[in-house]
This record gives sequence, structure tokens and C-alpha cells, in this order.
Amino acid sequence: MVKIKSFAVIGGDKRQAEMAKSIAADGYTVYAAGLEGLALSPAVQRAQAEKAALQAETVIFPLPASKDGKTVNAPYSAAEIPLSDALAEALRGKMVFCGMKERLRQAGGAWRAMPLHDYFAREEFAVHNAVPTGEGALEIAMREYPGTISGARCLVTGYGRIGKALSAMLGALHANVTVSARKPGDLAWIQAAGFRAVETGSLAQQGETYDIIFNTIPAMIFDAHTLAKTAEGALVIDLASAPGGVDFEAARRLGIPAVQALSLPGKVAPRTAGEIIKNIVYHVTEEGLA
Amino acid sequence: MVKIKSFAVIGGDKRQAEMAKSIAADGYTVYAAGLEGLALSPAVQRAQAEKAALQAETVIFPLPASKDGKTVNAPYSAAEIPLSDALAEALRGKMVFCGMKERLRQAGGAWRAMPLHDYFAREEFAVHNAVPTGEGALEIAMREYPGTISGARCLVTGYGRIGKALSAMLGALHANVTVSARKPGDLAWIQAAGFRAVETGSLAQQGETYDIIFNTIPAMIFDAHTLAKTAEGALVIDLASAPGGVDFEAARRLGIPAVQALSLPGKVAPRTAGEIIKNIVYHVTEEGLA
Amino acid sequence: MVKIKSFAVIGGDKRQAEMAKSIAADGYTVYAAGLEGLALSPAVQRAQAEKAALQAETVIFPLPASKDGKTVNAPYSAAEIPLSDALAEALRGKMVFCGMKERLRQAGGAWRAMPLHDYFAREEFAVHNAVPTGEGALEIAMREYPGTISGARCLVTGYGRIGKALSAMLGALHANVTVSARKPGDLAWIQAAGFRAVETGSLAQQGETYDIIFNTIPAMIFDAHTLAKTAEGALVIDLASAPGGVDFEAARRLGIPAVQALSLPGKVAPRTAGEIIKNIVYHVTEEGLA
Amino acid sequence: MVKIKSFAVIGGDKRQAEMAKSIAADGYTVYAAGLEGLALSPAVQRAQAEKAALQAETVIFPLPASKDGKTVNAPYSAAEIPLSDALAEALRGKMVFCGMKERLRQAGGAWRAMPLHDYFAREEFAVHNAVPTGEGALEIAMREYPGTISGARCLVTGYGRIGKALSAMLGALHANVTVSARKPGDLAWIQAAGFRAVETGSLAQQGETYDIIFNTIPAMIFDAHTLAKTAEGALVIDLASAPGGVDFEAARRLGIPAVQALSLPGKVAPRTAGEIIKNIVYHVTEEGLA
Repeated sequence: MVKIKSFAVIGGDKRQAEMAKSIAADGYTVYAAGLEGLALSPAVQRAQAEKAALQAETVIFPLPASKDGKTVNAPYSAAEIPLSDALAEALRGKMVFCGMKERLRQAGGAWRAMPLHDYFAREEFAVHNAVPTGEGALEIAMREYPGTISGARCLVTGYGRIGKALSAMLGALHANVTVSARKPGDLAWIQAAGFRAVETGSLAQQGETYDIIFNTIPAMIFDAHTLAKTAEGALVIDLASAPGGVDFEAARRLGIPAVQALSLPGKVAPRTAGEIIKNIVYHVTEEGLA
Repeated sequence: MVKIKSFAVIGGDKRQAEMAKSIAADGYTVYAAGLEGLALSPAVQRAQAEKAALQAETVIFPLPASKDGKTVNAPYSAAEIPLSDALAEALRGKMVFCGMKERLRQAGGAWRAMPLHDYFAREEFAVHNAVPTGEGALEIAMREYPGTISGARCLVTGYGRIGKALSAMLGALHANVTVSARKPGDLAWIQAAGFRAVETGSLAQQGETYDIIFNTIPAMIFDAHTLAKTAEGALVIDLASAPGGVDFEAARRLGIPAVQALSLPGKVAPRTAGEIIKNIVYHVTEEGLA
Repeated sequence: MVKIKSFAVIGGDKRQAEMAKSIAADGYTVYAAGLEGLALSPAVQRAQAEKAALQAETVIFPLPASKDGKTVNAPYSAAEIPLSDALAEALRGKMVFCGMKERLRQAGGAWRAMPLHDYFAREEFAVHNAVPTGEGALEIAMREYPGTISGARCLVTGYGRIGKALSAMLGALHANVTVSARKPGDLAWIQAAGFRAVETGSLAQQGETYDIIFNTIPAMIFDAHTLAKTAEGALVIDLASAPGGVDFEAARRLGIPAVQALSLPGKVAPRTAGEIIKNIVYHVTEEGLA
Repeated sequence: MVKIKSFAVIGGDKRQAEMAKSIAADGYTVYAAGLEGLALSPAVQRAQAEKAALQAETVIFPLPASKDGKTVNAPYSAAEIPLSDALAEALRGKMVFCGMKERLRQAGGAWRAMPLHDYFAREEFAVHNAVPTGEGALEIAMREYPGTISGARCLVTGYGRIGKALSAMLGALHANVTVSARKPGDLAWIQAAGFRAVETGSLAQQGETYDIIFNTIPAMIFDAHTLAKTAEGALVIDLASAPGGVDFEAARRLGIPAVQALSLPGKVAPRTAGEIIKNIVYHVTEEGLA
């Protein structure tokens, strides 16, 4: 029997575990599958994946939902959870949420046509995650840099979501903040926010060096030449998704400490990261009921 | 003879006067026409419009360049400045800047095909002007509201340029800030900035009242019903361009003080407003030379 | 008959009127005397001074309670309110609050020994009032300065209560803030808050000029020499209590616009100023009951 | 021969090493003794303690200068550095700086009467160090707390230097900040800064719980009772000097994670901590010369 307002959480990492606990704490029934390696609250019921799916109204897969297109992305699971026809059958008629739905589509069969809500594709998912990403970057900077953020000459390349959130945090902590962008409108926003604005293409020619450099642009910004011109004595933190924007080999040769920081929300703030997914699920579910 | 790096400023108000002074202070030759009613620095040379245009490399018209499509917008001019063929002729081969170029096009003849740089159409113009607009709104609120901004319950409707700039200022002064928007991505940004987010469409149903309400949405948001539900005892400031978003007649009936605040940059911060135009002119001119 | 939790407000200006309305809105009985020239809410009962005092448990005089030591400071009163023996008698056994109690003591007789709670003497009164004072100074700067606060080079002299509150506001609005002080500890706090610190004694030698100068030090800081060295082209706002810290005559000669801004809380934010007094009265009254 | 503007750095940890490098980078001659276990720049000359003292104009001991009253506090030294008569003799006529000078006085003999400048006793030393302490506390909170600082309900007990610096950082990162204090003036400052103010003595009765609690008061604030009432599910970070303000044994029993965080500046930001000492040495030296 399907319980009203019941949720199955299948696979994932700490943020899914936190999300399961948080949904249960809101008073709903929660079944968790594939999280055997993580602690949960007593209110969350552990179940096998198909049973969890059958019993719940709403099913939530992780981000990404699958890494190989064959099994659920479930690093803390006691056993593999195949994207089987049986599991697909159990999902029939349910509201199914996942991150990167094309990964589930790859499993073929019933997975190809199943209605899927991809929270990762929603603008507000990316915006909300910019906050834990920015804080995670700040934590790395605090740990690795031998001075304080206050007074440090910081460069943030790119003024997209992460660049906006991170530069605001750095400025709030009294760093000396420069942000680079390409578009005149973005450069104007950077100045309106109280920061120094630099065109990304002219970084190497500026003759400015920094104490901490945060790259958010997924393109090769910090090649050997630009590193040599801007990053002498600096700490470099690359937040851009693979392949990133820093030539780490060149950084090593130049003696510049460089850190690649990926998937920060799930790592540094799994509770917040879980809340973000939960809130989108609630929001979409309510819209669906309306 | 045309002087290298010489500018003609034709028509306009205080911001053009400030701009003329600022360009002259940068060491360039500046001719000003149609600003007879305003004080200028000795470095700015007053001239008749056609002469000014003939002698300068770059000519700058105000915002809007014309109100009637027949004369230059020049409220401080000793005499009308017609958009004549003679003036058009004097502009041949010059770099000509203006705000709202379609107003000049209306004059017909040579004006229709003249190359015109419209600074008002540039994204960075709007972004930079959000700062003086926000400060102007703040000044009105400080003057009209009998309490402090600190601790005041403020509502900002709309999270476009002005909404972003203004809410940041209010938050920085420790107001209790709520911002309304429609798109989930904007609502997420509002929360990420540390403010309470409300859907614009649900303002009347929320049952919340405010001390100061700033409208930035150019659509009828504050009709009699919404005013009655949100604005009892509040001060309402409408920043949206005409026809605005507040039913002023209803506000009057309800005893709610409401202020229409238009064209704030030129009024409250003409120096900054002039600098914004100057910087765009410089930037485009340099691009043109490169 | 004395009503439980009843208050008499005798004399004062807009802030006392706002306070009377606010206390009445909290559900208490309020009698107002000497505020005939100001609008009050229907919940506030107008009364003659002695009657008001007789009927109330708690009596609140303005700030200063008296200007001449003979009558209550009551600029909006229909008639003078003498500090008579009869009024003193009516206050017997009441909790009596006032600002600058030595002004009432001057009336002699029963006034000399009457128990008086001086809210003006309390540290938290001064701290809370630093906020409306800072906002009032900001409002003047916004009105008088032709540019934006954002980006303006601002100097605040003195890092006492007003200096702290005001510099925080200026920094929050992205001004370029310099603060002067004398003590090494204060200079360190200024830097920790993210501002440039300058020794007050070395202002003239620094060779720095500013766009807006706010003086908070009640001593002659801006004599002709210092004005000439720091304030060319600047707006000067003197917030220090009389005789202030600016040579206004020298400023006039030098063509430097200078504004003397006194008693800002009552003028720019009477509602907040009234709340501050009300909260102290409530707090002390509760302590007294405990 | 004593070189003009030469410095001896004797003993200490990473911050002394950073300070030695920074002074050398300013162009002065620097001799370092007792830092054999730490990397220095080539510009810093290693020397034996007495030789270093003899050759330098100014000698800088660590904080505390000694732990046992018999040897220099030199955890990275190749050998013990006794507070011998010979070392005291070498210091004759030098400017000698140290932290906690009473520790050197304990060595007796010539140490008892030697002129010593105690940088630790200076107000600006404590103020400047509040910034790295606050950032260090923030780093711990980011590492240990599974959510973001943004939106976390944070309590800071005490509004002294560290409480002020830390609460400002938390507020700047959009935490929901409550600060406790005892004095009405401090409670007013807390509110003026935009935070919720609570009387320290009433924490347990408030019925409020928090996500992260930072104690800065060196007195037993968080006993078992107060922990149970305020800290369920919270992370507790004790920043107060020994014996601190948290009953760690009770926290363990209650399942509340609690961290004791001492001497943060030298640990998390040795470069900044070294700069703070260097700047005081420079400042005092210049005063001495004047």
C-alpha cells in the first residue's frame, strides 16, 4: 500500500542521507535504499530499492542518478542497484526525481520513456548550491592560506553563480576583491557590488599578483603564462567543473600550490545540499498537486 | 579645425553639465551648447550647437536626446536647438553619442541614417545607473519615513537591476528585507543574498504588512486590494517607469503616502550619472580607435 | 485613580508624540500634556500636565527635560508648563523619567530631591541613538553631495559611537572609507572593520582629500588649515555637539559647503527615537517591579 | 658590529618564522635563532641566540616569551635556549620585545630589571588578533558543521573583541546571529549591529536552540544544564582561554560535539599573526626614534 506523502530515497551519498532524515523529521514516511553505509535516524525505514519504490509516492534518485548508465549511483550501498526492468516497473505512476536524467535514460527499456523530474536542470538548484560551493571554497582558502582572508588580495575569475556568491563572501570578510569577466554588463555588476573589475582576457597583461585565486571558468584560463604573471606566491583554487581552468602541471613546476575543488556542496555541507534537493522536490510536488 | 580628443556636449541637464566638467578635468577640450542655465567650469568652452559639433571629434547628446523629435532635449538652453539639416551636416564624420536614438531618427532627413551610438541601450549603462537609483530611493525613504531604515520592514518588488541594487543597500543598513519575484531562479538568488523571498503574485494573500514598500516592476502590482493588504501604515515608493506599478489614487483614498520617483540618477547624483555616460563614451571611443 | 500601567508624557517634540502613540498601541493608558501642536492617535488622552501626572504610574519628561530650569521643554505646547511645586507634588510616588535631570533639579524646591531616572545618562540610550544619527548624516550626505555614496571618498573623524555606526553604514554602501582616531586600540578596530585608519592629529599632513567629511569630535579639528588640506571640493558635515569641530567661517571663505547637523534622531527618525526612550522606560520599570 | 635596522628573532613558532621572513622582505637584516625546525627565506640569516642578540639593534622574543621561566619558548629549536646571564648581557642596550614579559622576569638576575616591550600587553595587539581568531573559529565551524554558515542559527556568547569580530563575520555570511552579553550598553551595540541580543544569564531560560555555539567568555557558561537547554544538536566551539567556558565532559555525555580552540592566530594564520607583531615592533621602534 502506498502511504500518502511517502518518499523513497534510492542511492546517493551523505546529502541523500541528510535529505532522508530531514524529510522524515518533517513527519513523512521515508524509505531509504542503498544508503547502508551511512547513519540514518530511526524515523527513516531502510528497504530494498524496488520495495522502497513500490511503497512510496515519490522517489528520489541522487546526483548524478547513475554514473555508468547501468546501476544507481550508490557508493554507500551494500550491493549494486541495477537499473533493471523490475525497478522501472516499480516506479510506474510515481513522481520520480533525479539529477542528470540522461544518465537514467541510458539504461534503455522502460527507463527511456519514464517521466523524470531533473532537479539538477533547474535554475534554482544551481543558484542555491552556489552558497555551499562558495563556503567550501572559503574553507579551503582558510585552511591552505597562511594569512587571513581579511586583507588578502583575492581574484575570482568569472561572475556566474559561483563567482557572484563567492566574491560576496570574500568582500564581506574584508578581502581585497578583484573579479574578472568578459561582458560589459558583468563588469558593471562587479563594480556596482564594490569590487575591482578586470577583463578576463587581460589578466596576464595587468601585472597584478594576488594572494588567493579562485577560478570558476571551465576553460583554460590559468595556463603557465597566466600563472606566472598573476599567481607567484599565491594559492590557486579551481572550482570549475572538469577539465577545469588551471594547468596543474604548470602550477607544480612553478611552485604554486593549486587545489582542485569539485562537488563541494555534498562534501562540505551535506545537510544544506540535502535541504536544497528536498525543497525542490516539495515545491514541484505541490505544483503537481495544484 | 577639429582638435584631437575634443568633445561637444549638446543639451541635457545637470548630468551633462557634470560630464562636461569631468571630461574637461581629464584634460580634453570640451564645447558645451545648450547648457546656458547651468554653471560650468572655466575649462569648458560654451559654444553654439553647430559650431560645437563642427569643432569636436565626438558629440554627446542627452538622455533622451530629444523629447519631441524636433529639438534637442535642452531644458537649460537659452534657446531651442532644432534637429536641423545644418546640425546634422555638422555631425558628419563625427562619433555621435545619444540616449534613445530613435528620438533623433524621428527628425527625419539626414538624421535617419546617421551613425549613432546609443549609450542608453547598453547593458552596463542600466547596471551602473542602478546604484544612483537605489541611493535615490533610499534618500526618499530616509526623508519620508519617520523611523530608521535599520529595523524597518522593507518590501522590494522585482529583482531586476534596481531591485538587486536597492535590496543590497537596505540589507546593508540592517533593514528587515523581503523581495518579491516570479521566477524560481530569482527567488533562489533572493534567498542566497540573505533576504526573505515572496512570489510577486501572492503578495496580497501573505497577510504581511511592511513599513516601506519599493516597487520596481512596471506593471500594476499595487492596486487598491494589494495596497490594502500590504501597505497599511506604510510608505510606498514607486520606482518603475511610467505608467508605474502603484494605483496612486487608491493610495490616496486609503491614506497611504505614496511617492513616484522617476529619473533618479540625474536628479540625486548628477555627477555620478555624468561619469557613467562619460565612461561609456571613453570605452566605445577606445574600442573604435583600436 | 491611578491606572495600572498608565503613563503620562509631558512636553517634548515629535519623538515624545511618537512614543506616546507607541505606548498606547502596546495597550497601556497614556495621558499626553503639552503636545497640543502635534497629531496623536485617538488612544492617547490629552490632559493638563498635573492631571496627567496624578493619573499615571509613570511620568516621562523630554530630552532635555527643561531648557531654562523653570519650565518643561515643550515647544509644541499650547501654554508654558512651569516646574511648579504643584507639579512636583503630583509626581510624588511616581516613577519619573527624563533626559538631563540636572535641568529639572535647577527648579529647586521639591524638584531638587525628587527621585529621577535619567534615560539620557544611560549608555544604551547613546548607543541606540547612534543609528538614527548615522542615518540622518547619510541622508544629509545623499541630499547635498552630487555623486553617490558608493565610491565616494569619505572621512569620518572619531571612532566613538557615532563614528562606529556611521562608518559601518558608509562601508556597507561601498564608500571608500577612512576613519581617524587617536588611540592605537581604536586605530586597530578601524582596520579590523575594513577601513583605512589615520591618526586624527596627522590629517592635515596626509595630503589626502575627500569627497565627504563627517566630523564627530567635539573639538576644533577642521580649522582653516586642515579644511584647506583635506576638504577642497568636499562636503563637510559636522555631527559633534556644540561648539562642534568645524570652523564654519573658514569653510565659507574657502568655498567649502559645510553643514551643522545636531539632534538628528528626533528630527529624522522621531518614531525610532521615541521607541528608544520607550524601551528604556519599559526596561527600567520591569527591573523596578522585579 | 650592530647593523642599522637589524633584528634578531629568537624562538617561537610559525608566526615568528613568518615575521622573520617579512622583516627581511622589507629590506632589513634579520638573524633567526631557535627556528631550526622551520623553513625561512634565504634573506634570513640563522644564528645562535647570543650572537643574534649581539648583532641586532632590536630583539624579538615569542608569545609567551618563555613557558618555564628558564628557557626561551622555542618548540622548533635544535637545542634549548636558556635565559642565561650571557644572553641577558647580549641584550644590553637593545630594544627588546616579547609577549608576556613577566615570564622573562622569572628568570631572575639581569632579566628582572631589563627594559622590555610587551607587545601582548598592547590593546591593538588583542584587537588585530581578533580577526585571525574569528576566521579560525569560522574555519572550524565550516569544517565540523554539516550545513552552511548561511542560514545557520549561531550563538556567540560575549561581545568583547573576539565576540565582535566573529559575530560580524557570521552576519556577513548570512548566518542568523544571536549574541549574548551582560551590560545594557553591549546589548545595545549588538542590536545596533543588526543581531539578536540576549542576556548571558538568561540563556538557559530562553528555550532557544542553536546550530553552532561559539563561547568567548572565560567563565563556566555552558554547564550541563545550559548545554541541555541550548545546544541539542548543536556544534559547540570554545574560544575562551583556559579553563574555558564549556563543560566538555557534560557535552560528551549529552552527545554534543564540542571543540576547544586555543591560540588560533598562530595556528590558522601565522603570516597575519607575524605581521601583527612586526607592525607593533615597527610602530614602537619609530616612536622610540622620534
